[in-house]
Amino acid sequence: VGGDRGISVVVGGALQARSQLGVRVTLVGPQQSVADELLRLAGPSHGIEIVDAPEAIDMGEKVTRATLKKRSGMQVGVELVREGAADAFFSAGNTALGWTIARLGLGSLGGIARPALAAVMPSVIGRTVLVDAGANANCKARHLQEFAVMGQVYAREVLGIASPRVGLMSLGEEDSKGNDLTREVHEALKASRLNYLGNVEGSDIFNGRADVVVTDGFTGNVALKSNEALARAIMQLLREELMSTTVSRIGAYLARGAFRRVQERMDPSEVGGAPLLGLRGCCVIGHGRSDELAIMHGIRTAAEFFTSRVNDQIELEVKALLDGAERAVSELPEGGTA
Amino acid sequence: VGGDRGISVVVGGALQARSQLGVRVTLVGPQQSVADELLRLAGPSHGIEIVDAPEAIDMGEKVTRATLKKRSGMQVGVELVREGAADAFFSAGNTALGWTIARLGLGSLGGIARPALAAVMPSVIGRTVLVDAGANANCKARHLQEFAVMGQVYAREVLGIASPRVGLMSLGEEDSKGNDLTREVHEALKASRLNYLGNVEGSDIFNGRADVVVTDGFTGNVALKSNEALARAIMQLLREELMSTTVSRIGAYLARGAFRRVQERMDPSEVGGAPLLGLRGCCVIGHGRSDELAIMHGIRTAAEFFTSRVNDQIELEVKALLDGAERAVSELPEGGTA
Repeated sequence: VGGDRGISVVVGGALQARSQLGVRVTLVGPQQSVADELLRLAGPSHGIEIVDAPEAIDMGEKVTRATLKKRSGMQVGVELVREGAADAFFSAGNTALGWTIARLGLGSLGGIARPALAAVMPSVIGRTVLVDAGANANCKARHLQEFAVMGQVYAREVLGIASPRVGLMSLGEEDSKGNDLTREVHEALKASRLNYLGNVEGSDIFNGRADVVVTDGFTGNVALKSNEALARAIMQLLREELMSTTVSRIGAYLARGAFRRVQERMDPSEVGGAPLLGLRGCCVIGHGRSDELAIMHGIRTAAEFFTSRVNDQIELEVKALLDGAERAVSELPEGGTA
Repeated sequence: VGGDRGISVVVGGALQARSQLGVRVTLVGPQQSVADELLRLAGPSHGIEIVDAPEAIDMGEKVTRATLKKRSGMQVGVELVREGAADAFFSAGNTALGWTIARLGLGSLGGIARPALAAVMPSVIGRTVLVDAGANANCKARHLQEFAVMGQVYAREVLGIASPRVGLMSLGEEDSKGNDLTREVHEALKASRLNYLGNVEGSDIFNGRADVVVTDGFTGNVALKSNEALARAIMQLLREELMSTTVSRIGAYLARGAFRRVQERMDPSEVGGAPLLGLRGCCVIGHGRSDELAIMHGIRTAAEFFTSRVNDQIELEVKALLDGAERAVSELPEGGTA
């Protein structure tokens, strides 16, 4: 139970998930408030379990030791996943906090040096998984290879893309483009079994060229936040301009469906949410602004994260990547005899 | 003479610049075609000089040795600046090519290790100078300090912002946020005489918080290209959605002024252009899609770049930054005696 829109929206989304998806839902939040809301919305036989998490965390709260000690919904929810009492966790709360709590509470999958935050971004023809979207500000080549594997497994198993096209974020397509880090990663990904497109550039997040875009968490976070802010600014200015004259107000009214559809499709903060990849558990953080429908879809995504066995696949495929790298090393001529 | 819209638009923009700004304009391009167009648009007494640059470069052409050898408008225009026959250069051609030709042809200002490409970005309340927007993929702390000085001089002298607020692109405001590079730069900028805001994040390009946002050329380029692509995608989808029903088509017609104003204000590829900072000469690269008015404004910007003595200021202020750093070093206690 979290997000900007209050308990009612989360409870409503959970009820939708239970009836439409047939999943078992446990709501984690302040017991009495959640119980009252469930009773109000669905009567006494709502079939949803509640686990008490009495302490609230404000959406804007910084991640500090004190925050991490609170018995918040995030803390208790992640514990349920760790103990196996829940198969997956979804929250519409603060992404940075969710990341930190899940990272500390669940630990990394076998073979994963750097779990990562993914962002499912809108594109003109579908969805693009951007990874890392902000968890790891300093990265080595090995880490970006892991991001590539984790992103393609998620795109395949949860987004249903048969053979996801993986691009490496750079400054242009040519092999020579990029920085020291990307040139090293580029060679490694070319030699991998991934469906690797090669270098891509910033525009390829949105034009549908790649299904997965791999980058360090610093660049990914700057891209994500600047894109969210630009979409917000365009929509805000459009609203202001449309309200500025009577004629344009009438025009806006007639075209309101078109605006809503564009906002739902292209605003990065309305789309997809953020799966946490490489952790021993399935967690998805949705947008704070999530409405009932978005909460329901978020719960569905978390459930699919679990049922499609993304984490088993990640462990297997990262191991294959490493074995490949080791084999490549062992195939090198022995020192001095070549 | 360059850009996507052909000679006529560039010649028209040059004529506007001459009559409205009172600057002397030399057009560099295929002599006969430019002469014919001038005659057609302004008659025989147009007062504009032509310098022949017979070889065209396609907007999509890659920057290769062969491209750089061509007697293109860019090549000849930059030579005019180098020889002092022109005070400033403007082109609506390919940015990467313009950068490379100017970098090779003009060289760096005294004290500047890394000239940089700036992008003047739209914000909800004005303009933000993003620097480096793609020239330097691998950067050291010293380079980002230069970008900060160059960006603030440009914002002050050309955009007319009295004391530009300089932000360092990072993952959040706190001192501890960022990567190894930004933490080093953050300390240096805090100790400088710049109006330094501290760390900013991706969203601060667009919300008007900072006048200058400093980052390495890799991150800056990814942000710029992803933002341009997102704005394009939103506008394209909006057009498609608005054309999808008769009612929304009518709405779009009534609100067309509002759309145009939003596109002009918020699309990064409709705003500002790219000044090349830190070179021995004043060059501005405008957008390929520039229309006559944009060409005129581009010529105005290039002229102001020269008349406001941006380059003298950059040399002075980078020297002050360095002297400050040297003084700080010389004030350290002598080894062993402290």
